[in-house]
Amino acid sequence: MTDAELREQCCAANLAIRRAGLLLLTWGNVSVCDRDRGVFAIKPSGMPYDELAPHNMVLVDLATDRALGGGWRPSSDTPTHGVLYRAFGGVGAIVHTHSKCATAWAQAGRDLPCFGTTHADYFYGAIPCTAGLTDDEINSGEGYEHNTGQAIVREFQRRALDPLGVPAVLVRGHAPFVWGCDAASATEHAMVLEAVAEMGLDTLALAPEAVPISAALLDKHFQRKHGARAYYGQPRA
Amino acid sequence: MTDAELREQCCAANLAIRRAGLLLLTWGNVSVCDRDRGVFAIKPSGMPYDELAPHNMVLVDLATDRALGGGWRPSSDTPTHGVLYRAFGGVGAIVHTHSKCATAWAQAGRDLPCFGTTHADYFYGAIPCTAGLTDDEINSGEGYEHNTGQAIVREFQRRALDPLGVPAVLVRGHAPFVWGCDAASATEHAMVLEAVAEMGLDTLALAPEAVPISAALLDKHFQRKHGARAYYGQPRA
Amino acid sequence: MTDAELREQCCAANLAIRRAGLLLLTWGNVSVCDRDRGVFAIKPSGMPYDELAPHNMVLVDLATDRALGGGWRPSSDTPTHGVLYRAFGGVGAIVHTHSKCATAWAQAGRDLPCFGTTHADYFYGAIPCTAGLTDDEINSGEGYEHNTGQAIVREFQRRALDPLGVPAVLVRGHAPFVWGCDAASATEHAMVLEAVAEMGLDTLALAPEAVPISAALLDKHFQRKHGARAYYGQPRA
Amino acid sequence: MTDAELREQCCAANLAIRRAGLLLLTWGNVSVCDRDRGVFAIKPSGMPYDELAPHNMVLVDLATDRALGGGWRPSSDTPTHGVLYRAFGGVGAIVHTHSKCATAWAQAGRDLPCFGTTHADYFYGAIPCTAGLTDDEINSGEGYEHNTGQAIVREFQRRALDPLGVPAVLVRGHAPFVWGCDAASATEHAMVLEAVAEMGLDTLALAPEAVPISAALLDKHFQRKHGARAYYGQPRA
Repeated sequence: MTDAELREQCCAANLAIRRAGLLLLTWGNVSVCDRDRGVFAIKPSGMPYDELAPHNMVLVDLATDRALGGGWRPSSDTPTHGVLYRAFGGVGAIVHTHSKCATAWAQAGRDLPCFGTTHADYFYGAIPCTAGLTDDEINSGEGYEHNTGQAIVREFQRRALDPLGVPAVLVRGHAPFVWGCDAASATEHAMVLEAVAEMGLDTLALAPEAVPISAALLDKHFQRKHGARAYYGQPRA
Repeated sequence: MTDAELREQCCAANLAIRRAGLLLLTWGNVSVCDRDRGVFAIKPSGMPYDELAPHNMVLVDLATDRALGGGWRPSSDTPTHGVLYRAFGGVGAIVHTHSKCATAWAQAGRDLPCFGTTHADYFYGAIPCTAGLTDDEINSGEGYEHNTGQAIVREFQRRALDPLGVPAVLVRGHAPFVWGCDAASATEHAMVLEAVAEMGLDTLALAPEAVPISAALLDKHFQRKHGARAYYGQPRA
Repeated sequence: MTDAELREQCCAANLAIRRAGLLLLTWGNVSVCDRDRGVFAIKPSGMPYDELAPHNMVLVDLATDRALGGGWRPSSDTPTHGVLYRAFGGVGAIVHTHSKCATAWAQAGRDLPCFGTTHADYFYGAIPCTAGLTDDEINSGEGYEHNTGQAIVREFQRRALDPLGVPAVLVRGHAPFVWGCDAASATEHAMVLEAVAEMGLDTLALAPEAVPISAALLDKHFQRKHGARAYYGQPRA
Repeated sequence: MTDAELREQCCAANLAIRRAGLLLLTWGNVSVCDRDRGVFAIKPSGMPYDELAPHNMVLVDLATDRALGGGWRPSSDTPTHGVLYRAFGGVGAIVHTHSKCATAWAQAGRDLPCFGTTHADYFYGAIPCTAGLTDDEINSGEGYEHNTGQAIVREFQRRALDPLGVPAVLVRGHAPFVWGCDAASATEHAMVLEAVAEMGLDTLALAPEAVPISAALLDKHFQRKHGARAYYGQPRA
């Protein structure tokens, strides 16, 4: 992708997130990565959504998380995005929101179980909630936002999760990060996460002891839409 | 109905479901059946709602669930629709959604009781929740989607329910299927189901031991709108 | 009021209720009464809201609940409205909805306590929930809808409530009826009831043992807006 | 600010509050203060939002809470605003709403804990809920609305809270008051309060024993956006 394409995609995805009702005020940011060129584009920090335009998306060096060139300051969450891109191969875009129900799960410190096929169509199992950051991780070292990314990566390693199979995480006491192979996929996953987070709340209200769907049903729905034997949607041209 | 009329009605009903707020992304599908001609029309699989038009609705053989002619692949849930049409006489249209509150009841694995007259005006008793599918039903035999239909039919048989008296079901761990004598009726039932599912959640929050309305009140409201002695609405011309 | 004015007000109030988000489909009806002429206007039964116009509002004799002249059949709830007008002097308009949160309280069979000043600004104490109708009241006598009105009146008498001080009721297992001295007031009360019903749900979620506000605070807020010493709003011209 | 600027800002902020979905009917009011001139502008009492215009905002003397000049009667809550401006230095605008979730916390009589970083980005700790007013405070003395302000000030003194660090309060059995250094900030805080109040409800539904985030995380997020070491947003020009 050229710089212009990267900025264009990044801006469009940031606006799509707002249009989907996942944002209030300036909370949230989307980045889009071009691994071949070692660069990602991300929303500028604290900029009102009405002012977003491709030209004020900030280009960031994938190796160092440093903004390239002058201009706007990138999102304060930039180092979290950088850590995730470097650890999770195949991720092409990352979405961070404070969408209401997903954030409630993060605040409650609970994994979001796979209670139904809506969830299984997109996420191969529970959405994990990270451990809380230690005071040292918050206050020192390479920086709080960097350590937030590290906490996510550590959680996926500890559970041996495939980041492309479970493309979302709940950061304890904070909010979700969601990703995908490209901007469209990451954006879609952010919408789905909020929907299943809302349904999960109501499921537990009706059945506090509700259990996840069976492994067979999880496999069936996830594979119906993903991988070699997928038969959902139209054949690729 | 001609093919053109069937496609037109099917497309309009799919769009009506979205307009009613029952859909997110591509989740859901509506079919409309012409029993005289042994054919039903259904939404193509995974197609964005913005691209739906009568000409891309897929015609399916009612006896075999096979798409007629070339073109788009029908909804992956097509065999579920087929089983229901063949087992439930008088059903002219079927709506499948993942509407949020109805899906929460399905995920909780609970029947939706008839807590009030809103429900009784449309459904003659509780909306049943099916048993979960066994691993064999999910993985083998005539196919998962076919077996989903079979599980619904079995549940109605086991409870001796009239599918036109209770035109909806909650598929455990999945979501609702709703039907009616025609597209307008099935669409209306899908909207009502979501509304009573939401009210039912709040009813239980206020009164965890809430009980259904009396048989007399259920009879009164259902018969007020249905059958020979109905007096709700305007006289038929 | 002339017939034309009555029809016009009635139609406008029915549409206002929908615009306020209190309605789904055809559920609900508003009537407006001219006591001097002994007549009220009410929505026709089961008519889609998009087709409502002043000319199809139905005029009803206040003494007998019978439609005057030919044309549309009045709302099936007409006898309930009639009973309330005859028992509750000073009521000039009645609104019936199945608005979601108020209906949940009715389905739960619980009075809606006065948990805050929002409620106290409009309702002088808890919104009562009626007793359930007996099978005989549902099936026999002067008719179910007449008996619904009677159950409401009986509840107000038993509790010695002033219908203009508490202009709303929850009919158990059914939904709210709300009223006021005129169409604007009744419509406003229906909106307020739904809002305080929603807040009441959340209040109990946070504090299951929550208690009503003090009598002093209830008095203060209700009198601030009503009666001789009111000082809320602008002086009457 | 000139009178015209004050009226203009006040009217715009009142309308912004409605646009943000924080209002129903006429519930709520915003004031904007010019401390140099000893005057604040406030919404007129009970005026429909559709009729608000800069020329009908009411100018009030900051020392006495008396309206300046003739014209409209100021909001009945004017003395509460006055008390807060006089006690809380640096406050430039005050927003009062009955927004649904924040009001539920006020009705439940509970402090809103800082469950996550969304909250910590704007409020340095829990949003306090006041004690209830005594019957004497409601009925006598300098007036109910004046005493409401006094109860807020007393709560902040008792807890040794900085009103600019925690720019909001829940008045028990009533609703929130929110403030900021200017109209934009106060309006933003009112929106954030409602969002975190909603998330807090869902957090407790998922985890009734949920605890606030750590002091380190609270410090980090609040300081990231406020004070000398802030690095969120763009550098000031």
